[in-house]
Order: sequence, then C-alpha cells, then structure tokens
Amino acid sequence: MNRLQQALDALVERIDTPSPIILADVMQENIDRMQAFADRQGLQVRPHVKTHKCVEIGRRQIKAGAVGITAGNVGEAEVFAAAGFDDIFIAYPIWPAGTKGPRIRKLAETIRLRVGVDNLAAIDALADAMGDNADQLQVVIEVDCGARRSGAAPEYAGELAAAARNRGLVPAGVFTYPGHGGSGPDARERAARDQDAALTTAVRSLAAIGITAEVVSAGSTPTVAFATNSVITEIRPGEYIFNDLGNARLGACTEDQIALFVAGTVVSDWVPDQVMLDVGTKAIGREGTPEIGYGGIAGTNAVLSRLNEYHGFLPLPEGDFRPSVGTVVPVVPNHVCPVVVNFEEYIVTDSTGTSLERWAVDARGFNN
Amino acid sequence: MNRLQQALDALVERIDTPSPIILADVMQENIDRMQAFADRQGLQVRPHVKTHKCVEIGRRQIKAGAVGITAGNVGEAEVFAAAGFDDIFIAYPIWPAGTKGPRIRKLAETIRLRVGVDNLAAIDALADAMGDNADQLQVVIEVDCGARRSGAAPEYAGELAAAARNRGLVPAGVFTYPGHGGSGPDARERAARDQDAALTTAVRSLAAIGITAEVVSAGSTPTVAFATNSVITEIRPGEYIFNDLGNARLGACTEDQIALFVAGTVVSDWVPDQVMLDVGTKAIGREGTPEIGYGGIAGTNAVLSRLNEYHGFLPLPEGDFRPSVGTVVPVVPNHVCPVVVNFEEYIVTDSTGTSLERWAVDARGFNN
Repeated sequence: MNRLQQALDALVERIDTPSPIILADVMQENIDRMQAFADRQGLQVRPHVKTHKCVEIGRRQIKAGAVGITAGNVGEAEVFAAAGFDDIFIAYPIWPAGTKGPRIRKLAETIRLRVGVDNLAAIDALADAMGDNADQLQVVIEVDCGARRSGAAPEYAGELAAAARNRGLVPAGVFTYPGHGGSGPDARERAARDQDAALTTAVRSLAAIGITAEVVSAGSTPTVAFATNSVITEIRPGEYIFNDLGNARLGACTEDQIALFVAGTVVSDWVPDQVMLDVGTKAIGREGTPEIGYGGIAGTNAVLSRLNEYHGFLPLPEGDFRPSVGTVVPVVPNHVCPVVVNFEEYIVTDSTGTSLERWAVDARGFNN
Repeated sequence: MNRLQQALDALVERIDTPSPIILADVMQENIDRMQAFADRQGLQVRPHVKTHKCVEIGRRQIKAGAVGITAGNVGEAEVFAAAGFDDIFIAYPIWPAGTKGPRIRKLAETIRLRVGVDNLAAIDALADAMGDNADQLQVVIEVDCGARRSGAAPEYAGELAAAARNRGLVPAGVFTYPGHGGSGPDARERAARDQDAALTTAVRSLAAIGITAEVVSAGSTPTVAFATNSVITEIRPGEYIFNDLGNARLGACTEDQIALFVAGTVVSDWVPDQVMLDVGTKAIGREGTPEIGYGGIAGTNAVLSRLNEYHGFLPLPEGDFRPSVGTVVPVVPNHVCPVVVNFEEYIVTDSTGTSLERWAVDARGFNN
C-alpha cells in the first residue's frame, strides 16, 4: 500500500483532514479488471453505486462497458437518473410507502427502471403505484441463497413473477445476494455455489410458468470470481471500485488494489504508546471488531483500536512507526461503503499525488 | 415511548423511510430542562452541535439561554458562524494542517472563537496560522480526566497556557471530556468526580503562573447531573437534545425524553420470526453490540440484531409484535449522534404527529 502513502505525501499541504482520497489510476485499474473478467465470462456488469454514490465514477463504469447501474434505494436512483443514467436496477425489496410510489412511477416513466420484489404485497403496492403504466416497471424477483436477509425461497420465484405479470408489471428475471460470502475466505466459494444453486432453481421456477428470466443477477465483490459457467447473466459488484481491508483479508483483492483511504492527522499523543487521529465514526463508520480493529494505517501494522465520533484511538505497535502530532497518515477502512455518507466530496488524485480534483458525493444523504 | 409511535401513526402517509423524525415538543422540553438545571447550578450551557448539526436547533438552544455553541471541527464551526452564531468553541485538539490554518484565522477574525489545544506543537502552529492576529484566538487547554483519549495531564495545563500566552494567543481556561462516564450507570458519577478533580488541578496549574481560567468547561449528557458544587463554569452536553437508548440505559434520561427516532419500513418477512427493515448502517450507524443489539423498536422488546448498509435484521420476540410487510415502525438508536451524518434533512413534528416541517442537517458532510 505504498502508493497510498506516496500520494498522501505529495498532497498533504493541499488538503484538510479527515477526508477521503481516491487514487484514480488504481480505481480505473479496478474498473477495467472487473469489466475484462466479466467480458471473458460473457457476463454483464451492473455496478452497485452505493459504494461511491458519485456520478463521475458511475460514468467511468459505464464508459468501461457496464450495462447500467445498481442502486440501493429510490433516492440514489433519482440522483443518477437526473444525471443521465437511463438503466437502473434498485436491487432492494421496495415497499412504495409514503411518497415513494409516485417517485418510482416517475422514474419508471423516464428511464428503464427495474426494482426488486420478494413478496405479493409489494407487487400489489407497486402495481397500484404505477396505475395505467404498470408495463413501464420491470420487477426482478429477489430470492434468498443463504444470507437469511431478504429474498423469497427460490422455488417460489415463479409464483411471484406470475403475480407481477397478472398485475401488468414486467417480470424481468431474478436476483440474489450472497451476503454470507463475507465471513471468511472459504465462505466466498461456498456462498457463490449457494448463489448459483438458488438462481438456477429460481430460473426453473419462472420457466415452469412460461416466463424466461431475461436477467439473472448476482453479487458481489467477494464472490464474483466464482460466477463462471453458471446461469448468471449479470453481476452487481460494488466494493471492487475502491476495495478495502475486508476484501483484502478475504483474498478478493490485493492491498495494491485499494484505491481509497481516509487521510487523518495525529492530533494528540499524551497516552504512552498511543496517538489520537481525527478519524472517528463520523469519517469511517464503526466497521470492525475489537479483535481486528476499525481500520489500518497503510504500510504499517497499526490499526485503530477504538473510535469515538471525531477521535480514532491508535495504539502504536512495536517498531519504527511513531508518528508525531501533526503527521498525516493514510487510514484504510475495513469496509469502504459507509465512508461515503460522511463527506460532501472526494479528493481525487493518482498514485503520484500530483493532480487534485474534487468530486461530489452526489447521492450522499439521499437514503430513502 | 408511546409518543413516538403515536406521532409516527399520524405522519406515516406523508413520509418516506428511512428518515429521522424529531418530536419538537419533546426536544424543547429537553432544552428547557437542561437550561433550568444549569441556571439553578450557576452553570453556562454551551451545547455540542455535533449531535444535531442543525442551525434551527442551535438557535432554539441559544434562545433558551445557551451562551454559545460547541463544535467538533472547523467545518461545523464555519457552517454555524455563517448562520450568525458568534460564539463558538471547537472542543477538539486542533491541528491547523492544510488549509485549516487560514480557515481558523478567518473564523477567529469574524466571531469569538475558542479552540482546544493539548500540546506545544499545536500552540505554535496555531500562533503561526494567526500571524499578527494571535490575540483574536482564544485557546482552551484540554486535560485528560481518565478517558485516555486526548488532553494533557492536568498539572501540565499551566505550562501550556503560558506557552499560548507567550505566543500571543489568549488562554481562556481549561476543558475536559469524561468519556469514561458512558460505560455503565455507576461509571457516570465516578467519571464526574474524576472530571472535577482534573479540572480543579488544571485551574490551580493555571493560577500558579498567574492565569485565571475564565472558562472551566465540562461534558457531557451522562455526567452533567453531577456537575454541582464544583469548579466547573460551563457544560457542553450534546446528546440531551434528542437522547437515545444508551442514555436511557445509563439513567441519564427517561424513555419519554427521547425526541428522535428513525422511521423504518418492514420490507421483507421470509425468514421465520424475523422481519427486515430498511434501516441499516447508512441510517443509524453501527452503534451497539451483538448483546444489546443495534437499535430498538419503541414500545416493544424488539431490537435490531444485525445491520447491513440498507437492511436491519429484526428478530421478533415472543408476543404480539408481528409487523407485516409495509408496516412503518419507530427505531430508536442506541447512540443518536451518528444518525445525523446519514441524512440531508430531519422530519420535524410533535407528539401528535400533526405538523410536518423539514429542517436541513446544515453541517452534515462538513467533517474537517
């Protein structure tokens, strides 16, 4: 991760901390590597924008060959649609409460919109929200593959697709999320196998009632390498754009493929063998455990042992790493996705740290 | 917490979820109660705006009698200064790196600005940043009272104050944060005693070199009830504005004094004895433990057992609480402060749920 430190050294006089720093060259390599993998496997890439919430980054993913984007909620979809993205899948079991019904209808009348559903009540509610224009909304049936989160039993997918069709909605296919693939290196491949099995069952369940699954959509950065020779037509990785310590631990990326860090300053050093950074939960979220810590300093063994809102507790391991007050260090998150909600903008540079642009976190704060 | 459910029932057709809902009447009671307590004790209130980051709420705190506000970083201070707040204390050991030096100087030339310091290097850096106008910046010496976070040893406060005076800065007093007061009901009073002892030592340390501490500033919502008959002149509570389950567990508030919840919708119910809410880490942060959960449903025993970014896992306890898909429920955070970074605005109502205003989270995203 020396690229991170090198870039930071070149930038340090021009930035305030804490702030999220992107190395655009490493990010572009991540985009290109994922697209090349998918192209070789005959898969379509529909990146999940929850990780970056940034229009400029979404454009680079599309330019590299992505067929559209995945969003986590209606607010994200609205921000990207307003910026010209015309093919969006909200991979979430949407319930059109409050003003969400009219918002979904408006989006569906403007772009190609797909939304997730996993139950009959939501299908009825979506059809009611669409009124005479139900055929402008594509629904994708979510099935569970072992994460025990959302998603119908795979063998029930056909019944849901039929119900959607009966209400005039367009059943476009099936999707799942192998969320149990993040719990250890071995779990990745097992979760990918579970994913494949669940999607295969779901596709057959649709076929049994005469519906062809146009899209068979799968996660995720940790499991995508195993999405080969499969029923899958589309992958929805999100974290690959930046990567993080969690994915490095799982073997889903190398440390050199980490494209984002949070620059933090040592602000206090009164406690022996510990310094305080200005990187707390309001910069990187509380992602981690007491055992693995809450984020690491690139190029060192030091990890944040505890976080308050604006304070990160950094015990100093044995060795040469003894940053003094005022030193700016690169903090690599365990899980990069929650970083994005904390900031108005990214600082964008490259591995040399020479360039400096600021990109808005466009969909930050639009969480419903 | 029935007020929360009652307000939500009245609002539910007019809101999207997840969204943070404030009961303005409960919040005003919290403001008035804290101010009345401080008035009785002869203490000044300088509320910490990190909890709400909202100009309108800060104005209500000032209107009730607060002498100014506390901010956690320069960005928050800038947002509130631009909105007319003219007395701001950044209670943080500031290091004026990057563009922060000029930003602090500009603020100090515009309003009465106090910043925290706990080391000689920061005093020099602040004095350098202020140039000829060092006397426009007040510094408050941070001392540690047992949280082992930031803050000098209390007996060293005088040396730091003298160094600040020698560089032309204005040493205004001392402050501390009893962060170890949040770990259990008994710990509150013990931490308050530690706080008092540390501040007393620090005040004497200043007096020994001929500096009178104009301000002797203390935290915090959990410990403030014990700030009586003390050297303390000012309190900086933050969480009291909304309260949360953490403060209720500590006995620092009652459940009826909780003024904020996050409205969440049941979006899926495929797993037996569990439903999924659209309230995840990007709505309430990952505040909690597997033992106490990550947030509770007001008026029930149900707590979120796990969070993903957009998903909250809600096991259903024995009993009557069996919300169906589409039900909107009030989620009360364990720790309210991290909620604020996730949203562009608050939904503001009262206990009847009749009124509906939207207040911007003005300082959201301004984290450096």
